[in-house]
Amino acid sequence: MQHAFDQAIALEAGPDGLWQGQTSPAYANMVGPFGGITAAQVLNAVLQHPARQGDPVALTVNYCAAVADGPFAVLARPVRTNRSTQHWMVEVTQGTDTVITATVFTAMRRETWQSGEHTRPEVPAPQDVPTPAGRGRVEWLNRYELRFIEGAIPANWDGADHGTSRTRLWMRDHPPRPLDFASLAALADVFYPRVWRRRATLVPVGTVSMTVYFHAGPAELAATGTGHVLGQAQAQAFGRGYFDQTAQLWNEAGDLLATSHQVVYYKE
Amino acid sequence: MQHAFDQAIALEAGPDGLWQGQTSPAYANMVGPFGGITAAQVLNAVLQHPARQGDPVALTVNYCAAVADGPFAVLARPVRTNRSTQHWMVEVTQGTDTVITATVFTAMRRETWQSGEHTRPEVPAPQDVPTPAGRGRVEWLNRYELRFIEGAIPANWDGADHGTSRTRLWMRDHPPRPLDFASLAALADVFYPRVWRRRATLVPVGTVSMTVYFHAGPAELAATGTGHVLGQAQAQAFGRGYFDQTAQLWNEAGDLLATSHQVVYYKE
Repeated sequence: MQHAFDQAIALEAGPDGLWQGQTSPAYANMVGPFGGITAAQVLNAVLQHPARQGDPVALTVNYCAAVADGPFAVLARPVRTNRSTQHWMVEVTQGTDTVITATVFTAMRRETWQSGEHTRPEVPAPQDVPTPAGRGRVEWLNRYELRFIEGAIPANWDGADHGTSRTRLWMRDHPPRPLDFASLAALADVFYPRVWRRRATLVPVGTVSMTVYFHAGPAELAATGTGHVLGQAQAQAFGRGYFDQTAQLWNEAGDLLATSHQVVYYKE
Repeated sequence: MQHAFDQAIALEAGPDGLWQGQTSPAYANMVGPFGGITAAQVLNAVLQHPARQGDPVALTVNYCAAVADGPFAVLARPVRTNRSTQHWMVEVTQGTDTVITATVFTAMRRETWQSGEHTRPEVPAPQDVPTPAGRGRVEWLNRYELRFIEGAIPANWDGADHGTSRTRLWMRDHPPRPLDFASLAALADVFYPRVWRRRATLVPVGTVSMTVYFHAGPAELAATGTGHVLGQAQAQAFGRGYFDQTAQLWNEAGDLLATSHQVVYYKE
């Protein structure tokens, strides 16, 4: 049986080069789908495109409007193909509405000098960190195994300023699924809104734009397999309705698989 | 007399909604223009657009190909206009070639709870940090006053692993010019390549994609004026031909004006 993630990101080649997809109830958020699954769908339109060259290096997804439950179309255009790199523009539409815009950069990568400068913090091993009891407040949370080391979703919405917005957690798909570029893109959005962490206040929020840089290649993804990924996320500034988030994702071996950033709307 | 920066980002409204621009010899890089001036030109096409609503919050610029010295056209399209937010797609072309793609998010911002969580590091005041003697190795460097506190451009290309890629510097336009969104976007790209800093080795490099999140609004920009901006930049991972950079820009008062990220190609 197919994994819920694979079902959710499945796209069918339609007429006029448009991919056809469908939102997945398994990844439903409070309103519309989990932003991470939308990012994975966008990336998948490029990954499945017959003209694609190389592996993803950069992905930026702009959440222009709430994605409605139901069908959507993805148009992925290679706007520039160089010798070993390729730039893509992507638009997701529902009817005549643009709901998502995105850009993707793919490249054929070669071995060079390398270094993971942002090293993985010292944390307990995944098996020593408990998973939260009970079901998630939204459906997509049940598609992930989340073992919070620091900065879990507040149990007590006390409205106090907790001084930091940092969260660290071990995470992977539930049930486990071998990591690939699409699921890594989705994991980059698993962190719940930093303003909730910092203020323990459930204000309305919505991601406006997310960027993921892929440091992992096929070898690191294969080596990670169904293992856990350590995620760390923290805001740098909150003000006048928007905050940012910077995030890092390492595997158990300590490889920095991806770095990510997003800017998020919040009210109040 | 007009500031070189204003001359460089000037765009003329052309036919079919296309803006016409011209690369500026004052901001020339080793090959083609400084990436920061290109980012400012892209942003300016949105800022000058009659349909624009609100101030920039997020800008992602993808450098698809070397911009050739000479004229270029910028097409900025508002793909989604909501009640108080707007999403833009931008393409820069030279002849029939797409050389830049970009997305911009603008919003009418309102006062909310706020906090600069990533606080400005303790550093000497701008007047206590010397400016480098002599002219920059490329022309655009002469358009900036750069006072390096830590991690200046290597004087000695010794090829050693310096263990960190972090740079901190006070910077502003030279001659001074009141800060605005366009010049802030350009400042986000002033940091020289992190791989040069880390390895003290002059390998070929090129930015592939840069994102800037604007935390400053008109009030913080006006308060900054012609003052110095503290920039901090550091890579998180280098590998198989690409590294990333995360950057913060604060004013002298300590406001975090912008956060930025980029992914950069390097050889060897």
